[in-house]
Amino acid sequence: MHLSPGTTFRHRFRFSQDDVVKFAAVSGDDNPLHLDEEFAAKTIFKRPILHGFLGGSIFSKVIGTLFPGAGSIYLKQSLEFMRPMFVDTDYEAVFTITAIDSDRHTAGMTTEIADLETGKITIRGEALVMHREKF
Amino acid sequence: MHLSPGTTFRHRFRFSQDDVVKFAAVSGDDNPLHLDEEFAAKTIFKRPILHGFLGGSIFSKVIGTLFPGAGSIYLKQSLEFMRPMFVDTDYEAVFTITAIDSDRHTAGMTTEIADLETGKITIRGEALVMHREKF
Repeated sequence: MHLSPGTTFRHRFRFSQDDVVKFAAVSGDDNPLHLDEEFAAKTIFKRPILHGFLGGSIFSKVIGTLFPGAGSIYLKQSLEFMRPMFVDTDYEAVFTITAIDSDRHTAGMTTEIADLETGKITIRGEALVMHREKF
Repeated sequence: MHLSPGTTFRHRFRFSQDDVVKFAAVSGDDNPLHLDEEFAAKTIFKRPILHGFLGGSIFSKVIGTLFPGAGSIYLKQSLEFMRPMFVDTDYEAVFTITAIDSDRHTAGMTTEIADLETGKITIRGEALVMHREKF
């Protein structure tokens, strides 16, 4: 089935401190802002925050496995880290297709993460994805 | 020490299939393109490729821990996935400061990953980073 502009997909998620520790290990990003409560307490965030790339990886998960799913080839992603994200907090990622190029089998989409409780956007961006069957 | 436009930082790295498996677990992105040799063999890539966000996470690592390092606050990152990246392959991430706003303590920089052997760019993008002491 081909998707069309305006199509929206929503996906709820949360990360744990264990996820943060694992992401720090695999990425090599052991910035204490993410791992050290004492260090983080002295920053403007007051407590450890998620790596921006861990939060943003929900875009990769959804695009690669759910919307449009397996077969996706990721071409571009922009990320604007607007607000910190925290562990054990419910978020929703929202994807909206803005344009489709059916010759190239690509789609542009907006990608946003919102805090489910406050509705505030934490990461905002745009993606460009190729999928031979869906676009 | 304050950094200035034109300053470049280089960082060599490689990822293993074990890193890919761990990234799939923590991100939830278990797209078979990254994990399943048989599936990947039928794609244009012929073999499993890194998650784009795993490759791109080197930008997070370097910005958060090396250049400008601890204390960095990541504001924006764009990612253009130009060529696939593979495990057990040597890459170099190159960062070049393009502009500094000393009032806001922010710097814009280009961020690129090149295959060390061929010199070809695999991911290209730009970052905006805040750091109270470095910018």
